[in-house]
Amino acid sequence: MDRRSFLKKASVAGAGVAAATTLAAPAIAQDKRTWRMVTSWPKNFPGLGVGAQRLADRITAASDGRLTIQVYSAGELVPALQALDAVIDGNAEMCHATPYYWQNKSQGLNFITGVPFGMSSRELSTWIRYLGGQEVWDKIYDQFGVRAFLSGDTGTQTGGWFRNELTGLSDLQGLRFRTPGLGGQVWQKLGASVTNMAAGDTFQALQSGTLDAVEFVGPYNDLALGYYQITKNYYVSSFVESGAATELVVRQDLYDELPSDLQEIIKMVCQAEYDEMASDFYANDPRALRTLVNDHGVKALQFPEEILEAGANAAKEILTELREGGDALTKEMVESYIAGFNLLRERTKNTDIPFLQAREKYFSL
Amino acid sequence: MDRRSFLKKASVAGAGVAAATTLAAPAIAQDKRTWRMVTSWPKNFPGLGVGAQRLADRITAASDGRLTIQVYSAGELVPALQALDAVIDGNAEMCHATPYYWQNKSQGLNFITGVPFGMSSRELSTWIRYLGGQEVWDKIYDQFGVRAFLSGDTGTQTGGWFRNELTGLSDLQGLRFRTPGLGGQVWQKLGASVTNMAAGDTFQALQSGTLDAVEFVGPYNDLALGYYQITKNYYVSSFVESGAATELVVRQDLYDELPSDLQEIIKMVCQAEYDEMASDFYANDPRALRTLVNDHGVKALQFPEEILEAGANAAKEILTELREGGDALTKEMVESYIAGFNLLRERTKNTDIPFLQAREKYFSL
Repeated sequence: MDRRSFLKKASVAGAGVAAATTLAAPAIAQDKRTWRMVTSWPKNFPGLGVGAQRLADRITAASDGRLTIQVYSAGELVPALQALDAVIDGNAEMCHATPYYWQNKSQGLNFITGVPFGMSSRELSTWIRYLGGQEVWDKIYDQFGVRAFLSGDTGTQTGGWFRNELTGLSDLQGLRFRTPGLGGQVWQKLGASVTNMAAGDTFQALQSGTLDAVEFVGPYNDLALGYYQITKNYYVSSFVESGAATELVVRQDLYDELPSDLQEIIKMVCQAEYDEMASDFYANDPRALRTLVNDHGVKALQFPEEILEAGANAAKEILTELREGGDALTKEMVESYIAGFNLLRERTKNTDIPFLQAREKYFSL
Repeated sequence: MDRRSFLKKASVAGAGVAAATTLAAPAIAQDKRTWRMVTSWPKNFPGLGVGAQRLADRITAASDGRLTIQVYSAGELVPALQALDAVIDGNAEMCHATPYYWQNKSQGLNFITGVPFGMSSRELSTWIRYLGGQEVWDKIYDQFGVRAFLSGDTGTQTGGWFRNELTGLSDLQGLRFRTPGLGGQVWQKLGASVTNMAAGDTFQALQSGTLDAVEFVGPYNDLALGYYQITKNYYVSSFVESGAATELVVRQDLYDELPSDLQEIIKMVCQAEYDEMASDFYANDPRALRTLVNDHGVKALQFPEEILEAGANAAKEILTELREGGDALTKEMVESYIAGFNLLRERTKNTDIPFLQAREKYFSL
């Protein structure tokens, strides 16, 4: 290891190093900050936990340790679903999570993470940055004294693991399915008995028959969770999660006090991570799926058309209810989302889908 | 304008301000650098020229002016297609361009920009960052003492403007078509008489009948170039350009001498711009297409299947020739690309395409 890369690694190693540097260079010490980032992810969790740690390291490196970020995995400082409250209450300076976890604060936050049959990760980023999404998001978080940036995305997720292969809607009646959020509400409308539970409990529940089906993220995570030991029926395209965006949330007053270059670094690293996390999933999902299919005999299945069509109708009902019944900011969020969605899907339909279809039909290397 | 945003704007305003700061703060002056970035784009050119300027401003802002970037549009310091040579020869520290412009240095560089029927922008970023693409790219540029980072992408492009509507392959025989690069070679194999010319000359050439067809990027650029005044036949999905990546190239010795935080800032801003430029295109392309169709009577057309199928075969022939006949690094690049492509398209096929098809078929808001 040469000296430069040693110094670089040292500078990202965290608070211990920052403290040592402070002793050695007192004149600069007052310009150094160490911030706590709580997350909603287990330590080193593929894609998400790894992404939170990498984002923290990148801010520390790009700021030369002037803003050193210490990462706390779910449960280390606060439980996964209290990450945002920890920032609001001043128990952490930042959190790395996903907005729909806070839908009890505003239903509008579902639209940032992603909604059933909604925007792809490419479309979502465009809406947030160019078509008004960030502005409505800011209004919602202003109420809590925090601000947020997109910090990653899973890309289109898989549909889940089912003990029995699905032939149509009749198979869904009473099906005990672990699937959270608005996606879960869609499955509920289709007749499933939907429940949520922590990832760590799902393997046992599926094995014991407490659950008939479970969905989480995609092959990269699912291979590690071991569901293939219980069932081989893996539905590999989800219609309820066309992506799930993550966020970095910062307390507004602390952010405002930062020098403008550190503000810019936070923004740049978050946007870089939006690309980096998706790249991680897109590289490792198909590797994991190859292992699942080739080594573990998993079947890569697609949902029957009847379920897709009913799912689309159910999703539309749910989004319409939010549009008509939500508070003022949720309504503003839905209107912004729909206007963006209807513009963006025109490019996807005219340009991206025909390219992908022609490639699939005619081209191989 | 409050003081912070004034100072921020001032800090990104360029060399004049940097020089003034140097006088006021001589102790820090030796840590300040002003670098010249030459580009292959006209000033303020939608998407590309705007992206180069924004990238420069973001590096300047995130480094608090310690690395101030001055942008020179095509022709200001050197012509568009001499941007890389200017960096190699020491006449500029950086360039913002696209790798296939330098295919006379290595045919392998085509694969970074994008090849006919090749990777989408999401797939390309994944290959570069996680599946070995950057490593081969680095080997090619090592020969010239430079290194490069992805700095943007157009997303899937449109197929072009044609004086006459296309019914099949027979319409392509002798068709005078402005379309550069490997895509041009595909059209040549299909019978077209392919030529390249600067964007500024294409309108007149199409109007006078010197050209029968022209393609450039997409609606965002094409609306400004005014082709709709000559023909209404606009093919809105290209099979030869599923995206075009841009690069930021830096002289290797200068990059190595930078403090590690400035190196990290360059990398982060480039990766953030990879997302930002695509978002710019994805927001503004469909807006421009609406204007073209609704206000100027343009027809949004798709190529006949016969042309798509023959195009796929021609693309495969060209890529096979490069695989078999290229120099060692080109061969290494092609092998890396093919392995990455065949892995990545599995996720796209299993997960992304079925989602998009179901959304298109069953869902509306």
